[in-house]
Amino acid sequence: MAENNVPYKIYLTEDEMPKAWYNLRADMKNKPAPLLNPGTGKPLTAEELSPIFCDELVKQELDETTPFIDIPDEIRNFYKMYRPSPLVRAYCLEQKLGTPAKIYYKFEGNNTSGSHKLNSAIAQAYYAKKQGLKGVTTETGAGQWGTALSMACSYFDLDCKVFMVKVSYEQKPFRREVMRTYGASVVPSPSETTEVGKKILAEHPGTTGSLGCAISEAVEVATRNPGYRYVLGSVLNQVLLHQSVIGLETKTALDKYGIKPDIIIGCAGGGSNLGGLIAPFMGEKLRGEADYRIIAVEPASCPSFTRGTYAYDFCDTGMICPLAKMYTLGSSFIPSANHAGGLRFHGMSSTLSQLYHDGYMEATSVEQTSVFAAAEQFARVEGILPAPESSHAIRVAIDEALKCKETGEEKTIVFGLTGTGYFDLVAYQKYNDGEMTDTIPTDEEIAASIAKLPKVPEI
Amino acid sequence: MAENNVPYKIYLTEDEMPKAWYNLRADMKNKPAPLLNPGTGKPLTAEELSPIFCDELVKQELDETTPFIDIPDEIRNFYKMYRPSPLVRAYCLEQKLGTPAKIYYKFEGNNTSGSHKLNSAIAQAYYAKKQGLKGVTTETGAGQWGTALSMACSYFDLDCKVFMVKVSYEQKPFRREVMRTYGASVVPSPSETTEVGKKILAEHPGTTGSLGCAISEAVEVATRNPGYRYVLGSVLNQVLLHQSVIGLETKTALDKYGIKPDIIIGCAGGGSNLGGLIAPFMGEKLRGEADYRIIAVEPASCPSFTRGTYAYDFCDTGMICPLAKMYTLGSSFIPSANHAGGLRFHGMSSTLSQLYHDGYMEATSVEQTSVFAAAEQFARVEGILPAPESSHAIRVAIDEALKCKETGEEKTIVFGLTGTGYFDLVAYQKYNDGEMTDTIPTDEEIAASIAKLPKVPEI
Repeated sequence: MAENNVPYKIYLTEDEMPKAWYNLRADMKNKPAPLLNPGTGKPLTAEELSPIFCDELVKQELDETTPFIDIPDEIRNFYKMYRPSPLVRAYCLEQKLGTPAKIYYKFEGNNTSGSHKLNSAIAQAYYAKKQGLKGVTTETGAGQWGTALSMACSYFDLDCKVFMVKVSYEQKPFRREVMRTYGASVVPSPSETTEVGKKILAEHPGTTGSLGCAISEAVEVATRNPGYRYVLGSVLNQVLLHQSVIGLETKTALDKYGIKPDIIIGCAGGGSNLGGLIAPFMGEKLRGEADYRIIAVEPASCPSFTRGTYAYDFCDTGMICPLAKMYTLGSSFIPSANHAGGLRFHGMSSTLSQLYHDGYMEATSVEQTSVFAAAEQFARVEGILPAPESSHAIRVAIDEALKCKETGEEKTIVFGLTGTGYFDLVAYQKYNDGEMTDTIPTDEEIAASIAKLPKVPEI
Repeated sequence: MAENNVPYKIYLTEDEMPKAWYNLRADMKNKPAPLLNPGTGKPLTAEELSPIFCDELVKQELDETTPFIDIPDEIRNFYKMYRPSPLVRAYCLEQKLGTPAKIYYKFEGNNTSGSHKLNSAIAQAYYAKKQGLKGVTTETGAGQWGTALSMACSYFDLDCKVFMVKVSYEQKPFRREVMRTYGASVVPSPSETTEVGKKILAEHPGTTGSLGCAISEAVEVATRNPGYRYVLGSVLNQVLLHQSVIGLETKTALDKYGIKPDIIIGCAGGGSNLGGLIAPFMGEKLRGEADYRIIAVEPASCPSFTRGTYAYDFCDTGMICPLAKMYTLGSSFIPSANHAGGLRFHGMSSTLSQLYHDGYMEATSVEQTSVFAAAEQFARVEGILPAPESSHAIRVAIDEALKCKETGEEKTIVFGLTGTGYFDLVAYQKYNDGEMTDTIPTDEEIAASIAKLPKVPEI
């Protein structure tokens, strides 16, 4: 069954694992637009960022020129506990689809946090520890990022305070318990423990919280408590840098067997996985060394690339964070309540936004019932129960493979399988019971939130 | 950090994966006692077993002489999707403990069923398919086995009917949803769909079910419906045979780096994991080629090896299944309601019972609060959230490593990490909240259930 002598799973040896992260920005002619200070409208300096992020991460955030940044030994040792992640040849899926296409997926779910988020969490925790900090704060929605950060902080004996969106805290108690098992303190947000939380609770007594509000609380605690910094699991340049380990391993594994992909597919919320997966391939494309079709897949209910506008916007709904230039639906945009597929962020990484704007990648949106259908089909033949987020990429990979079946083309498709769905079974149940529906925002809804974009001078 | 050039994780190549299962019984001088017909008290024949199990599995169940049985290509291909499982060097745990011991664990949790159960589920589903059957039936408690079987049946397009203990069906809806996602029908037991279920419901209207009752329902459906057979995930010889893939891979991985273990540790419920992990090592011991300390770890609240008696007993509480000679607490024994650590079976594999009886292995029991303490300690340094079952082995591995710290001995310890704890977070929460307690059965309680053992002629 193993055509081309490609095994079902390609694992790299420890020697073959990346020793440096790849900084995609170094190869971009049009650099991503800088973060702006929402007060002054001017690019944020390292000094302004240092009360929020630890120093080394500020440096990485602002570094647009260094192509490779060494991965410290301590982080490489941690990576060795759960990496390299396998690049899997989806022989069984190919057979089931009857496609001549060759499908590969990079599976990032084989760690307790259940996703690729750990790749950046451990890096951010390491630099915080190295700076002698006491701890870090963050927000989490469904809990993937919070879990990853809890694991990372536990490894480096750092205090970890997670503000978890209240509705998730109550409805997803299991993620919360994983975080607690790793020693994190988990607070439902909005809470009475912060000024901004108190204010929000006074204004909206019955609120079940939002990611934007949890960000605001986490930033407040980090900036008010000496020895603490705030960390974020997506969107930022530093996160894409750390996540490049996904793409670098993928490329090494493909090169080992002389495989050149035609299409690379990743799901896109804030861009952490997509940016990491495509990094070295996009680098080749930017340098004119190779060409690939690169496809970002987003939910039809939160379509920032495909229906958003390219402009400066707040990263949080509380409007206290820096302004980033990105494809955005407006920071006041909230996906329909029936949306269960994750990837709910209103904007998109500045780096990816710039690349999309410059025509280096495509984007498409898919509806969640078709995403869960793909998830189920994949689970049944490939064994892995995928996260809803990851299943967006599965959907498009299957669709592309079926196109190959029609045309007879033997394309090589690579997609990112970011994580597992063990904590998403309420959504799976809805799908299994035939009760899942799709809601796509109207043009008017999107126009209304985009109309509220902050006014900043174009630089 | 990598002493001896042993990587953090040893993966075998596809070529190095086992091509045959190892049948431990072939090397045993004292063969395990045969299954008896509860009606006649005589050894069950292939003919008597064939309405329950499919033909090839009956053959494997009764085969005491063939040392190696080829793994069919179809099963090997499925194995390639999630195997080889890594043999992990617990560098971080060693460092945290400050022990000179070298600790390795064979991690079987990296598949969606979350445990080693899939190794036998896929084999049993394959033989059922090969025989042209329509489907299989089984019981499941917490759902590990049911999930594994659902995945296996989905792969071979077999119907899968799972009777799930009602209290688990209601309290563990997520496992149920995974099974449904893989296309299984899941029925809470006792149910109105079987005669035995109706009878039990009439006698005990409020019952929340038991594994024994679910077994009875599954066997009834399998034997009454043409084209169906019953399958079981532990205890049986055929299951230990399939699970030998764990031990074979472990041995190959150790041999590759010239490592000879001193101590091999496995948790023991019905014996599926332990029997598989130790198989090739025990074989060497039986043939006088090598010596190892082999330790079975069981819960103090269900201590069949350490406090049970070696006698013929029913495998189910409903007393309709064959009689097996084993270390047993009596089929009417029920572990304390506060027991959350799994491994709740009243008896133990006949093969392992014979080996224990003959002095080839040790057994020890541990209390669940100390098991969860070990689980948490392990999770924080090794990253993986272990299943409570697996954590029994972790507890004893840590204890043995700490003994080495005292004596300065550089022993090599290998233990089986059977699975992940994503679906056990209610128990973790109890532990995190300081509300977990230990209950150990009194001598009188054990004597009372042992007094109810069936009377059978010794053969």
